[in-house]
Amino acid sequence: MLRTHTCGELRVKDVGKKVVLCGWVQRRRDLGHLTFIDMRDRYGITQLAFSTDINPELLNEARLIHREYVIQVSGIVRERESKNPHIPTGDIEIVVDNMKVLNPSITPPFTIEDQTDGGEEIRMKYRYLDLRRNPLKNNLILRHQLALETRKYLDALGFLEIETPFLIKSTPEGARDFVVPSRIHKGEFYALPQSPQTFKQILMVAGYDRYFQIVRCFRDEDLRADRQPEFTQIDCEMSFVEQEDILQTFEGLIKHLFKAIKNIDLPSFQRMSYEDAMNYYGTDKPDLRFDLKFVHFTSILKNKGFQVFDKADIIAGIVLKNQASVSRKQIDEWTEFVKDPKIGANGLIYIKYNHDNSIKSSIDKYFTEEQLKEVLNVANAQRGDVLLIIAGEKIKTLKALGQLRLHLAKQLNLIPENSYACLWVLDFPLFEYDEEEQRWVSVHHPFTSPIGDLSGDVANIKANAYDMVINGTEVGGGSIRIHDKQVQKKVFELLGFTEEEASKQFGFLMNAFEYGAPPHGGIAFGFDRLTAIMCGTDSIRDVIAFPKNNAGKDMMIDAPSAINQKQLEELGILIHQN
Amino acid sequence: MLRTHTCGELRVKDVGKKVVLCGWVQRRRDLGHLTFIDMRDRYGITQLAFSTDINPELLNEARLIHREYVIQVSGIVRERESKNPHIPTGDIEIVVDNMKVLNPSITPPFTIEDQTDGGEEIRMKYRYLDLRRNPLKNNLILRHQLALETRKYLDALGFLEIETPFLIKSTPEGARDFVVPSRIHKGEFYALPQSPQTFKQILMVAGYDRYFQIVRCFRDEDLRADRQPEFTQIDCEMSFVEQEDILQTFEGLIKHLFKAIKNIDLPSFQRMSYEDAMNYYGTDKPDLRFDLKFVHFTSILKNKGFQVFDKADIIAGIVLKNQASVSRKQIDEWTEFVKDPKIGANGLIYIKYNHDNSIKSSIDKYFTEEQLKEVLNVANAQRGDVLLIIAGEKIKTLKALGQLRLHLAKQLNLIPENSYACLWVLDFPLFEYDEEEQRWVSVHHPFTSPIGDLSGDVANIKANAYDMVINGTEVGGGSIRIHDKQVQKKVFELLGFTEEEASKQFGFLMNAFEYGAPPHGGIAFGFDRLTAIMCGTDSIRDVIAFPKNNAGKDMMIDAPSAINQKQLEELGILIHQN
Repeated sequence: MLRTHTCGELRVKDVGKKVVLCGWVQRRRDLGHLTFIDMRDRYGITQLAFSTDINPELLNEARLIHREYVIQVSGIVRERESKNPHIPTGDIEIVVDNMKVLNPSITPPFTIEDQTDGGEEIRMKYRYLDLRRNPLKNNLILRHQLALETRKYLDALGFLEIETPFLIKSTPEGARDFVVPSRIHKGEFYALPQSPQTFKQILMVAGYDRYFQIVRCFRDEDLRADRQPEFTQIDCEMSFVEQEDILQTFEGLIKHLFKAIKNIDLPSFQRMSYEDAMNYYGTDKPDLRFDLKFVHFTSILKNKGFQVFDKADIIAGIVLKNQASVSRKQIDEWTEFVKDPKIGANGLIYIKYNHDNSIKSSIDKYFTEEQLKEVLNVANAQRGDVLLIIAGEKIKTLKALGQLRLHLAKQLNLIPENSYACLWVLDFPLFEYDEEEQRWVSVHHPFTSPIGDLSGDVANIKANAYDMVINGTEVGGGSIRIHDKQVQKKVFELLGFTEEEASKQFGFLMNAFEYGAPPHGGIAFGFDRLTAIMCGTDSIRDVIAFPKNNAGKDMMIDAPSAINQKQLEELGILIHQN
Repeated sequence: MLRTHTCGELRVKDVGKKVVLCGWVQRRRDLGHLTFIDMRDRYGITQLAFSTDINPELLNEARLIHREYVIQVSGIVRERESKNPHIPTGDIEIVVDNMKVLNPSITPPFTIEDQTDGGEEIRMKYRYLDLRRNPLKNNLILRHQLALETRKYLDALGFLEIETPFLIKSTPEGARDFVVPSRIHKGEFYALPQSPQTFKQILMVAGYDRYFQIVRCFRDEDLRADRQPEFTQIDCEMSFVEQEDILQTFEGLIKHLFKAIKNIDLPSFQRMSYEDAMNYYGTDKPDLRFDLKFVHFTSILKNKGFQVFDKADIIAGIVLKNQASVSRKQIDEWTEFVKDPKIGANGLIYIKYNHDNSIKSSIDKYFTEEQLKEVLNVANAQRGDVLLIIAGEKIKTLKALGQLRLHLAKQLNLIPENSYACLWVLDFPLFEYDEEEQRWVSVHHPFTSPIGDLSGDVANIKANAYDMVINGTEVGGGSIRIHDKQVQKKVFELLGFTEEEASKQFGFLMNAFEYGAPPHGGIAFGFDRLTAIMCGTDSIRDVIAFPKNNAGKDMMIDAPSAINQKQLEELGILIHQN
């Protein structure tokens, strides 16, 4: 080793020791006859002292050393005169007697500090410099620990980590695949897995009983802020289980991770039906760190002569505590927010319940004070509160109110910091109608088992599926799977597959079901998102060492890029010239 | 849970307990008024008992149950009358009072037994059935444990597991890449990584100090028996280290794995230079479980008037103990073996040192008995031994002798079972001349640091590289890397890269070297091969859940396969029609 210690480990007890350290120059301070260098490595920062008294030549050399130089120094550990209580090594410094520049550095394009001056683009291009900053470093360390603790927990429960292939078969159902042309079988393609779904089910058929894998997955979708073309899942499957077993096992996993990593004891997770989540929070992933639960007024406000309400499917609202004195301007801003085409509500109605018991509302022309009082009463509003109401088509109204709920919580600082609200959402519909494709599609995926049988109105069939939501983010989801070939065939039928299509794409799975498939179910967690939540960052890019930008580009290595003609010829493909 | 216990856990202490078990029917024995079913799951086999005394109806039902049916039974644990000492549950059985068929099975195309009657092709197609067999199941369980113990060991030493991207950039140097067409950037491609080499070096530049990853890698090579297009590496890198640090750290890893998984204490690894490995074993990955070290006779046999020797660069041989009585026919077989065009020796010479002190040799016309005795003496051969000699061009002769050495060891059963000979091979050349490309290429890869500087004869520059060899298989290899931009540039020059090519392919790494790159080095283990060695199997297919066949095909899911026209159009590529 080129060092005896790291930059994070020396303490007062080491005073007098002769040590050799290596690291990067974080900063240098020249004080006349003295120069101090803060030397950094992954483990911490140690102060190096150079002075004219000890070695004037070395002092001069030290003054030629700049930020991000890699140096090796030897010297004696000394107790500092002015200690730094903010860092663990703050009580000591190294009196340097020898120094070697292992590698110099040109000036970085942005500062390597917790708060940097670099824009996102330049930090992506020089990711190796950005990764030197503490926030990213700490995120990646936490990510490592999360993966390790996940493996510990699942191994202790008898789960086996089994690797599944990356070069698989393209299936048009679901999101778009990345494909890989085959050189040996020209004109044919592998696909990169969107998840190991069918393989983990095959492993259950093969009797592996409890499987997991922390595994990269791929989706060639148009990218949004929080999406990456490659992402990591904690993928799990169990045999001979019912829904409750899965919920207990994986609620246990998340509790274990919070305890092991953050020393937080999470309470039992709340549970909510998909229907309640939509009706009371306007989303299938409610953020329960704060309240603002919807109140429904359809039965008491509809058909009372106010046209907006009378033609609405649904009338619902949110009570804001102690906001009756909110300004007209603020209400206008909220109204604009919900009327934005992306949200699409027709408008926003308010009822202020003033401290003096008076009521002020945008609908007081249409309703008596008594009627409004009843509304406030149903909403359990108190003096000083304001009630915000949206009315209209059911799903659009609920979603608009859900968006408003999140907007209000952020704006009014209703979200407690460092709090975690964990929730299971249950009883999803099995199918939803896709207007574009003009057919029913799976809400989760075609392997999800129905609750009960598949007869009756397709719209009313419930899925034996569950999502885990933390702080309004879906961190995981899964289902009890179909293990019966006939049921699986029927689902493919309802999805509009011909028998031939189903057999071509998933024949191997349906065949496998003929050889003794056990009842089974599982779940997959978005590992990037889970890590981001535990790191307290909004962006999964902050927890991925080498993320791609919004255009799917790796800015550091410049990928994707052109390949040479020989490669194309070997693969037997041509670039389409437009 | 659909069960109270697994099929592997009940013992005599559980007698009298009411239990529910689930599993697969391994076999059924009908004995008139009694029927026994062996029920299997991942954890073991439990015997189920049905009898006319207890429940004649259930007995009849049990007789309709066939191999590989999945059933759920409830019943009472009873001590067996005739115990089976071969299985841990052999002292008990379940007196079944209720049985439910969870899923029937049609008859499998081969028997699900340790020794199966299925050929490789059908077992690949029905991999979910093949995976039910104990040998494969035990391999995958061991693989899981190996991965877990690897992580434990490296985590304890401060290594961080950091995920690197799968969608990277194609680099023509080295093996052929699999590529992934980009839909968003039409005409451009990602490549799948052959290893995370540049990323782990970037992580060292970023200060992560100790990195590892158990990670899938991809090479689009023509497949040989023991190659897969996708394979798994234990990939590692450390900063501020010298070669000795890497050897100690990763010798420690392998020792830990053997101890933790197989309870074997490995001795310190042998070390050997590449030159000695070639000169004494004819390979860069000698199998040291047995001796048969080469003896060199060039100086005493050349220029003595025997033409075959006089025109040879090298004359070397192997002593076979106690084989002086070997038949002429056997020696002819060995001669044919080394003359096979794939091996290419001109012939094989023998000198038998008989028990009666006489000497019999294929060259006794050309050499006196005294001369032959001297040869035997140099070889330290004893009465009863035979000496086999090959002469010719240096590398060809050494390799032929190396192949003969392996052949003899297998044929004469000289390889002790369950033994492990671990070895570091050191001091490789940095470059080798590629006759086909008419240029120097890297023996390891272009990031390998030279020992000393890059001046002098290119052929004589040694690499600061090391391979780990176990039982004649290269399980890992690595090097101290170049961390200086000028040295890296010079290596690219020697490899015949123009400055533009080097910058286009590896510019990001060379740029990174300008911002304070630490000295660093690492290693990568072939996880499939390491697992195969520890499982005692010759084929990596036996340690991969879903391997591809020799044509790179996944026989179970039928990949690669055609994709539809819409996908091709979205990607902007055409299939070349020949």
